[in-house]
Amino acid sequence: MPLILVTNDDGLHSPGIMSLYGAVKHLGDAYIVAPDRERSAAGHSLTLHRPLKVSEVRERVYSINGTPTDCVTVAINKVLPERPSLVVSGINRGANLGDDITYSGTVSAAIEGTMFGIPSIAFSMPSSKQYHFDTASAVAYNIASYVLKHSLPYDTLLNVNIPNVAKEDIRGMRFTRQGKRLYDGAIQETFDPWGEKHYWIGGGKPYWERGEDTDIETLEANYISVTPIHLDLTNYDALSFFKEKWRGDGMWTWDSDEKV
Amino acid sequence: MPLILVTNDDGLHSPGIMSLYGAVKHLGDAYIVAPDRERSAAGHSLTLHRPLKVSEVRERVYSINGTPTDCVTVAINKVLPERPSLVVSGINRGANLGDDITYSGTVSAAIEGTMFGIPSIAFSMPSSKQYHFDTASAVAYNIASYVLKHSLPYDTLLNVNIPNVAKEDIRGMRFTRQGKRLYDGAIQETFDPWGEKHYWIGGGKPYWERGEDTDIETLEANYISVTPIHLDLTNYDALSFFKEKWRGDGMWTWDSDEKV
Repeated sequence: MPLILVTNDDGLHSPGIMSLYGAVKHLGDAYIVAPDRERSAAGHSLTLHRPLKVSEVRERVYSINGTPTDCVTVAINKVLPERPSLVVSGINRGANLGDDITYSGTVSAAIEGTMFGIPSIAFSMPSSKQYHFDTASAVAYNIASYVLKHSLPYDTLLNVNIPNVAKEDIRGMRFTRQGKRLYDGAIQETFDPWGEKHYWIGGGKPYWERGEDTDIETLEANYISVTPIHLDLTNYDALSFFKEKWRGDGMWTWDSDEKV
Repeated sequence: MPLILVTNDDGLHSPGIMSLYGAVKHLGDAYIVAPDRERSAAGHSLTLHRPLKVSEVRERVYSINGTPTDCVTVAINKVLPERPSLVVSGINRGANLGDDITYSGTVSAAIEGTMFGIPSIAFSMPSSKQYHFDTASAVAYNIASYVLKHSLPYDTLLNVNIPNVAKEDIRGMRFTRQGKRLYDGAIQETFDPWGEKHYWIGGGKPYWERGEDTDIETLEANYISVTPIHLDLTNYDALSFFKEKWRGDGMWTWDSDEKV
């Protein structure tokens, strides 16, 4: 039985993680190692300034007082009895789309798994009052079982967004590119009890670049969106461009540069 | 005079940010908006669960009780008198190389600036007891003035790592790709005063994939490494691959998929 690590960023007590666990426990030896509380928008952050406590909540279920990324690295290095064959993260309450995935604790947990060379998948559903976790669970089962069998390309994870609808209303699955959120920038002003102004980030309605092949438009059309994400952020086109251009412009003038 | 936003992840009281400010204040109207304390390894994290306080420390210098990403978004939306022409982040104490840039608060601040469509640059130096901030400051001045004049490609920031040596020992500047850190995974075990085991992430020595064109090897050879980083994490090769392969494998079996 392959070992499967289940984590999330909504915290151990979120229903989404139990739904994901319910899906993958049929595929292997599943362990939950998740943050002890909600850590949304944690990004790919590690806790370096203090030690972390691992609590065994029950058999094969652990909480850590840290970020999703902490959970993955501590789980793999210290908690699990062996190296996992798969890392799954979610099911997040709130879609993870476009550039916003860099904020996402859910996706960052999958990034961390990928850095360990382990096939990793992030699962999310758009925000709502009610969640069709049975839909998400069926999708997670299908995709996780495929990935366990066929693995994933080098340095690449899957960012899966699932429409929050009944199973029969899902129109299918599509591979997508990461879309682009255009400026939104909502920040609310609020005051503390002593009348001092504070700022609270959030509350905006994002505006998205359109494109049939994007994650956002695919999800909106009630398809499951699967975006292959890689860890190499180098813009290779820009790299070639700069190599020519900056030298041509005489941008750099360290004398010794000419020697090379 | 162009408006320039200066931030970092080591916090307002770090010498690196004053060195960066000293460099760019000759190029425009420079403002500092930085975390009130060290926020290393914060990743691209936003604070959504509480309001943020902006404190004016002195003219054009502000601290925020949040992450580097918080600082950039609050600065642009609420603090600065107009939209900046440039965002610079650093000078970080500690290099930001390879996949580890996704952990970096310094780079994440530049990611946030880029999401606003503003040319953004992250500057870092390898960890040391003593820092050649005069070298870093000269480099930052050169690169920032070039970028102010010529801008940057769409959706692309520069991740600059500067050797921690005297100016005359810098061998030049090179454009590089993001290298790859191989498994390191150092976690120390420690005990609280009541004898409970805790884990403390850190203390390892990373092992890097070799490659002359990588950020790490370039920096080690005493060249300034400049890596163009973009925000689109889609693995397009994998995208084409999956579109063929998963369909061929009959991976997806929602009835309605066939209709599309």
